[in-house]
Amino acid sequence: MTSLPTSGVIPPLCTPLTPEGEIDKVSLERLTRHLLDAGVHGLFVTGSTGEVGYLTDLHRNRVLEIVAGVSAGQVPVLAGIIDTATPRVIEQARAAKAHGADVLVATAPFYVPTDPTEFRGHFRAIRAAVDLPLVAYDIPSSVHSKLPAEVIADLAAEGVLDGLKDSSGDLNGLHSVLDLVRGTGFPVFSGSETLADVSLRCGASGLVPGIGNVDPHGYVRLYNAARRGEWDVAQREQDRLRRLFKLVNVGDRARMGGYSSAIGAFKEALVALGVIDNGTTSIPMIQLNSEERAAVRPYLVEAALLPNGEE
Amino acid sequence: MTSLPTSGVIPPLCTPLTPEGEIDKVSLERLTRHLLDAGVHGLFVTGSTGEVGYLTDLHRNRVLEIVAGVSAGQVPVLAGIIDTATPRVIEQARAAKAHGADVLVATAPFYVPTDPTEFRGHFRAIRAAVDLPLVAYDIPSSVHSKLPAEVIADLAAEGVLDGLKDSSGDLNGLHSVLDLVRGTGFPVFSGSETLADVSLRCGASGLVPGIGNVDPHGYVRLYNAARRGEWDVAQREQDRLRRLFKLVNVGDRARMGGYSSAIGAFKEALVALGVIDNGTTSIPMIQLNSEERAAVRPYLVEAALLPNGEE
Amino acid sequence: MTSLPTSGVIPPLCTPLTPEGEIDKVSLERLTRHLLDAGVHGLFVTGSTGEVGYLTDLHRNRVLEIVAGVSAGQVPVLAGIIDTATPRVIEQARAAKAHGADVLVATAPFYVPTDPTEFRGHFRAIRAAVDLPLVAYDIPSSVHSKLPAEVIADLAAEGVLDGLKDSSGDLNGLHSVLDLVRGTGFPVFSGSETLADVSLRCGASGLVPGIGNVDPHGYVRLYNAARRGEWDVAQREQDRLRRLFKLVNVGDRARMGGYSSAIGAFKEALVALGVIDNGTTSIPMIQLNSEERAAVRPYLVEAALLPNGEE
Amino acid sequence: MTSLPTSGVIPPLCTPLTPEGEIDKVSLERLTRHLLDAGVHGLFVTGSTGEVGYLTDLHRNRVLEIVAGVSAGQVPVLAGIIDTATPRVIEQARAAKAHGADVLVATAPFYVPTDPTEFRGHFRAIRAAVDLPLVAYDIPSSVHSKLPAEVIADLAAEGVLDGLKDSSGDLNGLHSVLDLVRGTGFPVFSGSETLADVSLRCGASGLVPGIGNVDPHGYVRLYNAARRGEWDVAQREQDRLRRLFKLVNVGDRARMGGYSSAIGAFKEALVALGVIDNGTTSIPMIQLNSEERAAVRPYLVEAALLPNGEE
Repeated sequence: MTSLPTSGVIPPLCTPLTPEGEIDKVSLERLTRHLLDAGVHGLFVTGSTGEVGYLTDLHRNRVLEIVAGVSAGQVPVLAGIIDTATPRVIEQARAAKAHGADVLVATAPFYVPTDPTEFRGHFRAIRAAVDLPLVAYDIPSSVHSKLPAEVIADLAAEGVLDGLKDSSGDLNGLHSVLDLVRGTGFPVFSGSETLADVSLRCGASGLVPGIGNVDPHGYVRLYNAARRGEWDVAQREQDRLRRLFKLVNVGDRARMGGYSSAIGAFKEALVALGVIDNGTTSIPMIQLNSEERAAVRPYLVEAALLPNGEE
Repeated sequence: MTSLPTSGVIPPLCTPLTPEGEIDKVSLERLTRHLLDAGVHGLFVTGSTGEVGYLTDLHRNRVLEIVAGVSAGQVPVLAGIIDTATPRVIEQARAAKAHGADVLVATAPFYVPTDPTEFRGHFRAIRAAVDLPLVAYDIPSSVHSKLPAEVIADLAAEGVLDGLKDSSGDLNGLHSVLDLVRGTGFPVFSGSETLADVSLRCGASGLVPGIGNVDPHGYVRLYNAARRGEWDVAQREQDRLRRLFKLVNVGDRARMGGYSSAIGAFKEALVALGVIDNGTTSIPMIQLNSEERAAVRPYLVEAALLPNGEE
Repeated sequence: MTSLPTSGVIPPLCTPLTPEGEIDKVSLERLTRHLLDAGVHGLFVTGSTGEVGYLTDLHRNRVLEIVAGVSAGQVPVLAGIIDTATPRVIEQARAAKAHGADVLVATAPFYVPTDPTEFRGHFRAIRAAVDLPLVAYDIPSSVHSKLPAEVIADLAAEGVLDGLKDSSGDLNGLHSVLDLVRGTGFPVFSGSETLADVSLRCGASGLVPGIGNVDPHGYVRLYNAARRGEWDVAQREQDRLRRLFKLVNVGDRARMGGYSSAIGAFKEALVALGVIDNGTTSIPMIQLNSEERAAVRPYLVEAALLPNGEE
Repeated sequence: MTSLPTSGVIPPLCTPLTPEGEIDKVSLERLTRHLLDAGVHGLFVTGSTGEVGYLTDLHRNRVLEIVAGVSAGQVPVLAGIIDTATPRVIEQARAAKAHGADVLVATAPFYVPTDPTEFRGHFRAIRAAVDLPLVAYDIPSSVHSKLPAEVIADLAAEGVLDGLKDSSGDLNGLHSVLDLVRGTGFPVFSGSETLADVSLRCGASGLVPGIGNVDPHGYVRLYNAARRGEWDVAQREQDRLRRLFKLVNVGDRARMGGYSSAIGAFKEALVALGVIDNGTTSIPMIQLNSEERAAVRPYLVEAALLPNGEE
């Protein structure tokens, strides 16, 4: 059995859709190989970048099966088991295990008004119900609460949690967790596309960057440079990737939300790179128009992912 | 077929559980009859008060079947089709229709970063997918966005929305919607337990009060008094019910969140009244201890729901 | 000495400015008489509607002197002593007393990160320093904290607070305070323009409506009707005033903030009514353009404050 | 005339008070020399750490005079001109210039509902009114709005702003500003005590750390190491300072807010180091009790600021 990687680059896979909104199996397989070929250390499916909140249970299971099928044990497959509260999350956990997940990734409860006093019981119940490594997913922008460092450290010590994916954007919070788990080998992954180098420098063990779908080689290079202590190399790579990341703003914010723009732009970039077949995003996201789609390519050229001549 | 009631009291049913966390069918049937006997005008299942965020799909369907079975067409059954975004909500809508819902109640997307530009597409897609009356559920405390009055009024005019349940606690917002739909017959229900009389006075057509589980007769009296224009009677009833509602604070907030306390207190009150068998709430809510459970009874006595002698 | 009115309409006066940004004494005197003639029960200067946050100390003192001069003891003059924390607020209190204030109105500390544990000391120190009646001003939208009902009730019982101005827009909070001070005569004023009738119905003793500058007669009629128990009359007046209040939206929100629009519209309405000479607002507020200014008049006509023919 | 330093460590001075709440001149002079002796590059008075929100105008002026007197042109003195909106801020600016400030530091408007459309006019009016270099102070936790990177860059290009103090804690925001002003020499200072090394690495030109009062030598060492490119040395210094910074938590949060605890702890540490005479903080902050004060010393010992034997 493939266990949780304690370090490395684990991109949160986009979920390619057909224009009709079905899972595009061929594109997803190509995306998976695109990432594996770049040397990523794990694959995270049904995360926020993967439009998990929009995918039906059937679609979630199918995505997982496809990716696990391509990976075939080369790297661990982590599955987001995203649902409102514990009993529903446990159902997601069971389905994820059945469809090939090696590791489960769960947030705090959301929609239901939740409270820090309830976090411990939540993660304990999930871990007790399904025997797979469990990673806590701290994403306050989606769940509207923050996992306290003490709760994470306690649950790590108890053996309930096997890792943390920190998508809070809060480096001080990251430090707080790292201070508490120092020396234990508990892995902490940063979900930031733009603070990857400083997160590694602060002690994070790995990266889960959304735009790693588009440029996995870049994040693998950044990560490897950091491991060798070549921080200037890592920083230059980060600077390039931060400029690339600005493609999330191609969508007109008077017409759409930031997420419609960002996910649309990620997918459009993958289309431009020949990795997936089309850029459709889930209902009710607003689709990029042709002008907005065309605005993606210059970012890819500037990041040296496409030759200038193609422009 | 039973259509949407355009006015009246529609309590959001608690979901009685066995100590093992299974649906307690007998208790739920008794609760349904308790409400019907009080003369309520509709039954709202799988809402926030019904712990919908904690219930598995199986449990949601079972709750709906049980309540629809007892109601047997006497009053419409409204079902909360609560899920993160449109494709998942549509799945919930299909299941709800299959298990006996007369009316569907859907929130804005949540967990996924959502934007007002996306609300119209969300509700249109749900309405197009499942042919049942659709009520928008405005609950910013859970979904962290507010449905703009203009969006609601537009979707009402289009025939997409058949009503609004306003759980925002924002009377100015309620006014804004009422101003826009005046004269159209579009029903607006207030989810406030404590502003029921003023909401009706402002023009709301009905009430969806959580503590209506405990004292449905009180809200029916309040509603009927308001309909007759006897506002002082309505206000006195509201004053009594507002005092009763303070039982939501029995739980020690150092040990638990406000929702654990409130839902626990509602259920414990129903136990004390002999309506349901036990007060278990879903994982990971914190259970009331014996002291906290005992603190519920005095509220029932003061509200004249239990004789003083029993104390 | 004029003591705190325990009920009635106490408009928060706009501060008329010359185009150069100086206090326009003649206009302010006319505005004061405009309000007194309408039968208001008190005058509140240097509140949020009065642009207190923009006024220098010199201008604050001048405003107070002018208004106190015109009022000449006919009704009490309340002065907002708005500053960041206690020692500065006490300085404001001393200046306000010296320049003619009968009653002081103070918020919780702001800018400085403040905490409910510190509220009691804040109000106690102000009351101890300056011997005038003290009203707490609950305005979470400006100070970003909420005064707990228990704190207010305790300080009322201690004799520190002589009243509350509730600009929180939270009717449940208003109820919580009213429940705790019932029977003590402690006056609670609502700062809501649009929930005036329901606030009075819930037990508020008075009103501090910004748009009361424009239509003081309307709020006095509303208040008097409420006092006589003629709630339908009060509600019809409120409905008219709520429509009038929508003039706060004349400013283009792409060009300016909501406050620039609202204060600009209040002043422009006073210009149109011949009460003040021009609509200048303080730096850095964005001034209404001619189109936006013209949009104010139809609201005045619809509210029957201007004859239709003048349009 | 001393101009704005474009780099270096500029501690925001604590304001020592007597037990009666007056400015403690002797202690403030000692604190100023304590910082100058450590080699700091500037002195920032009447900032948030200096309790500016609590200080009367008289006290603000006095603090500035004392510090400017000790510094006597050795390093520039920056003064926080903190007030609610433009006309009041301009008054503060004039007073600061008159009492010895070399550079002015102004936030966005607060208390008054403010809007990004109004930020440009605010800073332009201040700069036009008082001829001193002007630094924008981005502190969303106090003013509840965030200065957009584009506004800062535009005002820098216009010559209105001469620098930025970023106390937002948002490294991505810092990057956004740095990307826009790259190559212009516009200095950006980080107000973070705990992300000083990463901020410098990202391109910040200087530091304004509150706990730099307690350990100025540490921040000067950190800064100098960073300038030499010795990032591992800088990081080790930061790690030590981050542990020291945890002394902000000595106060019991059931009794007091976080700011009472932090400012109290800074001052108590300065007492323990013999720099100031007592740890009194402004009304209405809660004072540390003897147990809490005693808890400060171990942090100083661990940070090697006090010998172990003194414990």
